[in-house]
Amino acid sequence: MIEISARPLAGYFFEHYRLGQKFHHATPRTITQGDVALYLALTGSRLPLHCSEPFAQSLGYPSMPVDDLLVFHIAFGKTVPDISYNAVANLGYADCRFLQPVFIGDTLRTETEIIGLRDNSSGKTGVVHVRSNCYNQRDEMVLTWIRWVMVHREDAVNPPRTTALGLIDAPAQVAPEAIVAPAFLKPAKNMSTVTGGVRFWEDYAATNAEEFSKTPESGPAPWQFEPIKHPAGMTIDEADHTLATKLYQNTARVHFDLHLMKDSRFARRLVYGGHVMSICRALAYDGLENVLSIAAINSGTHHNPTFAGDTLFAISLPVLKWPINADIGALRLHLVGYKNIDPNTAAFADAPEHLKVLSLDYTVLMPRRPK
Amino acid sequence: MIEISARPLAGYFFEHYRLGQKFHHATPRTITQGDVALYLALTGSRLPLHCSEPFAQSLGYPSMPVDDLLVFHIAFGKTVPDISYNAVANLGYADCRFLQPVFIGDTLRTETEIIGLRDNSSGKTGVVHVRSNCYNQRDEMVLTWIRWVMVHREDAVNPPRTTALGLIDAPAQVAPEAIVAPAFLKPAKNMSTVTGGVRFWEDYAATNAEEFSKTPESGPAPWQFEPIKHPAGMTIDEADHTLATKLYQNTARVHFDLHLMKDSRFARRLVYGGHVMSICRALAYDGLENVLSIAAINSGTHHNPTFAGDTLFAISLPVLKWPINADIGALRLHLVGYKNIDPNTAAFADAPEHLKVLSLDYTVLMPRRPK
Amino acid sequence: MIEISARPLAGYFFEHYRLGQKFHHATPRTITQGDVALYLALTGSRLPLHCSEPFAQSLGYPSMPVDDLLVFHIAFGKTVPDISYNAVANLGYADCRFLQPVFIGDTLRTETEIIGLRDNSSGKTGVVHVRSNCYNQRDEMVLTWIRWVMVHREDAVNPPRTTALGLIDAPAQVAPEAIVAPAFLKPAKNMSTVTGGVRFWEDYAATNAEEFSKTPESGPAPWQFEPIKHPAGMTIDEADHTLATKLYQNTARVHFDLHLMKDSRFARRLVYGGHVMSICRALAYDGLENVLSIAAINSGTHHNPTFAGDTLFAISLPVLKWPINADIGALRLHLVGYKNIDPNTAAFADAPEHLKVLSLDYTVLMPRRPK
Repeated sequence: MIEISARPLAGYFFEHYRLGQKFHHATPRTITQGDVALYLALTGSRLPLHCSEPFAQSLGYPSMPVDDLLVFHIAFGKTVPDISYNAVANLGYADCRFLQPVFIGDTLRTETEIIGLRDNSSGKTGVVHVRSNCYNQRDEMVLTWIRWVMVHREDAVNPPRTTALGLIDAPAQVAPEAIVAPAFLKPAKNMSTVTGGVRFWEDYAATNAEEFSKTPESGPAPWQFEPIKHPAGMTIDEADHTLATKLYQNTARVHFDLHLMKDSRFARRLVYGGHVMSICRALAYDGLENVLSIAAINSGTHHNPTFAGDTLFAISLPVLKWPINADIGALRLHLVGYKNIDPNTAAFADAPEHLKVLSLDYTVLMPRRPK
Repeated sequence: MIEISARPLAGYFFEHYRLGQKFHHATPRTITQGDVALYLALTGSRLPLHCSEPFAQSLGYPSMPVDDLLVFHIAFGKTVPDISYNAVANLGYADCRFLQPVFIGDTLRTETEIIGLRDNSSGKTGVVHVRSNCYNQRDEMVLTWIRWVMVHREDAVNPPRTTALGLIDAPAQVAPEAIVAPAFLKPAKNMSTVTGGVRFWEDYAATNAEEFSKTPESGPAPWQFEPIKHPAGMTIDEADHTLATKLYQNTARVHFDLHLMKDSRFARRLVYGGHVMSICRALAYDGLENVLSIAAINSGTHHNPTFAGDTLFAISLPVLKWPINADIGALRLHLVGYKNIDPNTAAFADAPEHLKVLSLDYTVLMPRRPK
Repeated sequence: MIEISARPLAGYFFEHYRLGQKFHHATPRTITQGDVALYLALTGSRLPLHCSEPFAQSLGYPSMPVDDLLVFHIAFGKTVPDISYNAVANLGYADCRFLQPVFIGDTLRTETEIIGLRDNSSGKTGVVHVRSNCYNQRDEMVLTWIRWVMVHREDAVNPPRTTALGLIDAPAQVAPEAIVAPAFLKPAKNMSTVTGGVRFWEDYAATNAEEFSKTPESGPAPWQFEPIKHPAGMTIDEADHTLATKLYQNTARVHFDLHLMKDSRFARRLVYGGHVMSICRALAYDGLENVLSIAAINSGTHHNPTFAGDTLFAISLPVLKWPINADIGALRLHLVGYKNIDPNTAAFADAPEHLKVLSLDYTVLMPRRPK
């Protein structure tokens, strides 16, 4: 009775995608005061830029901008029905740039192009590489990113193929020259009082990207410099991660459908990786209180799944820094999320790899120390 | 010390109601951006009319209207303290008509009249039939509906009575001539891009009401026409159904009070049936993307209770359709909700009756195919 | 690498505090429509003053004021990182006065002074007494309160000290002369219709403070006058209490960190006492429908912890009353919260002490009976 839609009801599978194919994702989304309050309640974020109108205005913003990760999750959620409805796992992100502040009342929509396709040796799945762009109601691009995601084939192929089309090497870092601060942005006079933090851009001793890239991803004490071990832990429950993911209109089945997931190897629902990113960033407030905004996500990886009942912890390593102008500096941070092990305890020295859930390498804007 | 209120603290019981009695329910409610965001987070709804201000305006609305079911739940919630505080079960709804769009900032209040009373043979309960009307701050009626609900007697009667007062036959369907579209309503030029759906009013092959009414309610393959089997499932948790029901200021004890319910035959809290309606309708987005609004609920029945941990699925059968004007058509849909069985799996052919949770027969407005 | 902040990442411990020390707490907070909707969803509050714009205006308010307890929780949450991050337990509140209505769009910040310090005999903890003041964006004080909280020492002392500095006797009640009604406040003509309550200030037979203070806090039938036994119960789940507490940006670890708490004597997360206050007050709506606002919290005590899965019940005892003006009276209420025992059942007569979770003695404004 129902004629074939542009999108099958069961979603696209790997073999449906074509290099260069473009998607105008459905359901543009006006961001409201309600979304912003829910984001606070779901993450415990305390960044004053996103919850104090007077503070935002004292920095030069016309009004309180929306948290960068809330923008990311809403923009990302739009892509899920077309790109990752039948995903096995989100493998990574790169070259993610926040180009414009987003304000309450703005309406976001997202477009995606298939930029790479690679068959997996199993014949059952493949990896889809996409570039997604998010626009506001004035058609200004506010956010762009690359991600690659493992997607089921509808029908396995045997023998497996080894096709790899259009794959590009994602840059390890968004280039410093691509990081700009809004022209209006000036640190407030009372920064430390408002944020509770006394550390400014000058106070973070960053290693440099070359050395950092040589260090192994795991193992004891991999870094030359001491990471900031954020003090708190946050336990995730089923209802809060599903509320967050529904708010973002992200429809990936693995987060919502226990009837499906109870027969998976996890036997339960998976927490949306973006919720893990948001919780870890909220935990990273203590020690990084003067961060103003995210300019770029250089790379992101979900190492292990997170489930309801897990308690998340986070450490941050400053990796690189450079000045933007006389008032603002850029700081590249490597945020690592763990579950069920507190970085401030002795046990952390031998933290097993399966407790590492997230690596998020991102670049923030931070005020320079007031003269 | 406390003098008798108009309403007893323990709520009304069946023997307190009188035919023709009228209630002005307490707590008028201004709908805010926060309610709208919470509704998205609680249901995962993706209808762009209710989350995109520019899309709403492109259809002719002055601003984004509030989701019809959110309006229904808030209007309904007001009636609970006076009508169904001591309810055993909500038996059904009929003749529910959405008369005006409701916007953020509008304030709703509800009035109810007792239109029928019937004793049950147990002597312990009775069925109360009511007509409820919901008004906005300009005293314009925005919504009206009939429902019947089984309510406990405070004191059982023995022998039982067989009184039946004022019962009316609820119409099986809101008459087509009562279904009107707002004068301003025009389909947007970019409907398919915004909604992600390519099916318009012309693309649904409806059976007709007479044939439909002859088919049995249960059993394998009851319908002549193929239903739309919506692809996704949504698991309900305790905190999300209780958050929804508190948001609607619905006070029915069965949803909130585990101390009470642990000694019931269910041994746990019941999910508010309206939350089940909202989840099933959100699941029904895929396959019905171009639905604009609900004009009427013809009938509604909760077949079995839903509990936290259950995963809901939905199918929709187009039942009847007729044109409203050159741009808009009416489509009557029969939405059936199931728990813990996926309509897209083979097991569904033998779905046992106790997994069917909802039948919601409703009429929507849908754009006709652009010429 | 990180220089010492004004605040250690692990928070302050008892030995860090000095008498007279002042804190300007971080993260000013603009209250939005989203916060207000979330508060309804999290508590089930039905006070029409906080959810009906026309009703608020009919009382003389320029717009809908924010629920007093939502203001309290947000103001209180700001103090947690500096005062009670390493708290064992919140012991009590006193002299809490609501000085100005707070409206959507207002921005709150909080300051605190250490007004007393007392070592505990264990040598492992001490009690910190503070006065906190909350200001809006015009630097008008909107709320002030005293609390005392037991805080861990970072390093235990042996032998223990018996220092007690600057302790004051908190007043048992905010003095009647300190209770004022806003000059604009007039009861609405349709109060009973809007609130659903027919009882006005004249209808509550209060005992008096002297007699009340002589009655024991526990034991069967301690009071001379009958309390109002509110009819409903509300079960708390993990996700709703943590959502509430994150919304208030309260960072106390005991509410969020299951990894930490699983090794505590409770073996699970504790519900924020303020959430218990809000739930009990929402339950107290039935029987106190015409309460307009909270003018003062005279004292508050959390007798026992509350956990997810507990069902809360409440009773209220009117303690004292006096007229404010020809339209408005003051009513002092003693609200007692219980878990897992319904005051409307016979079992309540022998309610064991460990089921009592809250005593909140507060003073409200209530309209006098319309002539």
